[in-house]
Order: sequence, then structure tokens, then C-alpha cells
Amino acid sequence: MNKNKNISMTVIRRLPKYYRCLEGILRSNVLRISSKELSEKIGFTASQIRQDLNCFGDFGQQGYGYKVKDLFNEISNILGLNTKRNIIIIGAGNLGQALSNYLYNAGLNFELCGIFDNNKDKIGHILDDIAILNIDDMPIFVKENKVDIATICTTSDNAQEVCDKIISNGIKCIWNYTQVDLKYDDNDVICENVHLIDSLMTLSYLLNE
Amino acid sequence: MNKNKNISMTVIRRLPKYYRCLEGILRSNVLRISSKELSEKIGFTASQIRQDLNCFGDFGQQGYGYKVKDLFNEISNILGLNTKRNIIIIGAGNLGQALSNYLYNAGLNFELCGIFDNNKDKIGHILDDIAILNIDDMPIFVKENKVDIATICTTSDNAQEVCDKIISNGIKCIWNYTQVDLKYDDNDVICENVHLIDSLMTLSYLLNE
Repeated sequence: MNKNKNISMTVIRRLPKYYRCLEGILRSNVLRISSKELSEKIGFTASQIRQDLNCFGDFGQQGYGYKVKDLFNEISNILGLNTKRNIIIIGAGNLGQALSNYLYNAGLNFELCGIFDNNKDKIGHILDDIAILNIDDMPIFVKENKVDIATICTTSDNAQEVCDKIISNGIKCIWNYTQVDLKYDDNDVICENVHLIDSLMTLSYLLNE
Repeated sequence: MNKNKNISMTVIRRLPKYYRCLEGILRSNVLRISSKELSEKIGFTASQIRQDLNCFGDFGQQGYGYKVKDLFNEISNILGLNTKRNIIIIGAGNLGQALSNYLYNAGLNFELCGIFDNNKDKIGHILDDIAILNIDDMPIFVKENKVDIATICTTSDNAQEVCDKIISNGIKCIWNYTQVDLKYDDNDVICENVHLIDSLMTLSYLLNE
């Protein structure tokens, strides 16, 4: 699918914005759009847009622009959004609950299939139609269910232990919400960090300038 | 403080990781560290570390390395973490509550001073020692209290309206947790987006590769 396998993470991280923007354009029944018009909507330059999209294929036509629906479908495909992905959440605190709600309402192909906690007061409670399970039952759950992505929303103290457990049970894809930079030897493991306080520090830097 | 004002956001976004890593090294009572040793701990190359830090000043000494405490203090300063910043949160749902807890426990110079919601069932409840206030009272609150950063944790539908309200009340710094790319004319406004679903889409892309 991809023309160039050495695509920078900076370009990749812009793709969801293209997805969201094109989704909005599609909803307003626009059939085709020039990179200049897309530029006005998305806030990247037309040249940047052409460069970005060119990493993945030849989508536009000189003098015609992009077919909105085709481009939306292509980006959806590139992002893997046409494949159903099963997700579990470990840690059913406020953040875990917030993410559960987000996934439930996102209308995307991500299906939350399990939520785990070690707190006896939480285990058994229902969250968005799913019962919170004991973290000790995670290995059995993972054997019986296909799990693509594990989300870590525990305290930082428990993060590495949970990470080890996830990987030893064969899950290769981690969405990490703790402040910890997780360590693992397996080169096949993919980890996407959402370090919330790092983001606040970045904002603090910009405010300090 | 900064040698070079044209520092890329990629470098800036690495600074919190330096901060966290140096904090850990300080805690283990290490007094000085070479860029090679720091490299092993933080996972950037020694050359990358020297380049990154060189954007902000001359911190290391050839053959000696970095004084850990001095470097930690410098980075803390560069990130503006030695200045107290007052934060408000708009939207007291699960995510707003999670962020309130994070700020309460982070032990940093960010002080949560107000939480707002439009839901009558939530208004008046206490969250981490702070009463949830009516969003309609935000303008008066901002007049009476110095507010540096406003965090938007509302639904996407309300995000732009809340953003307009924040800016019209003189707050220039926004920490945006909604999926919306906020629009504003004021060039002085700083906005840091934490688009959670964008991050999940990035993970989905990497999983799809």
C-alpha cells in the first residue's frame, strides 16, 4: 500500500488529522477538493499536503484535485481503520473509564473487549456494557479472546509490571498512558505513549517563551 | 535563557523526557553523568543528547560530562517548571477528574484552582478539595483569580464554544483534550492538543504495517 516504507513519524502523526478533516468534508457532501482548498480547511500548506500524501500513493490529479471519498477511504486504509481491532484496558480508574467512554462513542473499528483492575471494589462493576475483571484473570482472557491492543492506565508504580505481563501473554501493541517509559526486549512490540504531564510541560515551555 | 529561538517542536517535546530521566538519576544520588551514560538511560544517542542540549546552552564539559543537579535545574527552568502556573479544567467528566487527580499528585508547580461544568448534578461536588463550579461563573472566576492555563475536557460539540469563552476572558493558553482542532484569531494564543483518538489511530497505523 505504501510507496515509501521510510515515512517519518511526523508525517504519520498528521494522518489522523487528514482523516478527521476529510470526514468533515465528506459529511458536507463535497465530492472533490484541490490541495489549496484542503489546505484552507486543515491548516497545512498545499505543498505540504501534496508531499505528505505522495508518501503513500498517487491520489490527486493535476488540475482536478482529490476525490474526497476515495482519499478518505485510502487514508482510512493506510491507518488500518478498516480492520477491526480488539482492545483491553488495564486500570479502571477515571482515565480508564474516560477511555472506555471514548472508544464506546468513537464509532470506529476499535472494540473494547475487556477492562481489568486489581481493586476488589471495582471488579464486577459494569462499564459501558463490560464487566471489570480481575487483573489476575487477564492471561486466561487473552488466551480465549483475540486482543490486539492493551491500554495501560494503571498508576506509574504498576506500569512496568503490567507491561511485562501484557507482553508475556503475547500482546505486541501497547497504548501507554502512564508517565513511565516502559522497557521491553521484544523488538516486535509497538508502544504508543500518551504522557499527559509531558504534554503539560511542553505547554509550560511555550508559555514561558 | 535560550541560545537559539528557532528550536524545533521535536526537540522541545523531548525535554520532558530529559526532565523525568534526570529526576530519576538525581534520586539515585548520582552527581555527574556523561552523555554516553545518559544515552543508555534515556534511549537517545549521545550525539542527539549533545545536540538537543546545545540548543539551550553550554551545559556539559568535555571529558567531565554534566552535573546532574545543575542540568536538571536548567531543564526545569527551560520548561518553566519553576514558575507556579494556575490551571482550570472545563468539563468534570471522567477525563476532567482523571486530570484533576494527575495534577493533584504530580508534585509540580501546576496548581489546579478551578473546575467547571454545565451539568447541574456535578456542580457543587468536591473534586480533589475543589468545588465544581457552574461554567457560567467562569468569567467572574477568571477576573478574580489569575488563570494561566485552561484545560478543555468537554464533549467535542461544546469545545469551540468553550474555547471562544476562554479566549474572550483573556486566557491565552489552552490544553485541549477534545478531538476538535480549535479555531481562534488571536496569534498570542497557545494551544496544546492531546487528541487521544489520533494517538490510537497512529498505533493502528503501526500495527497495520
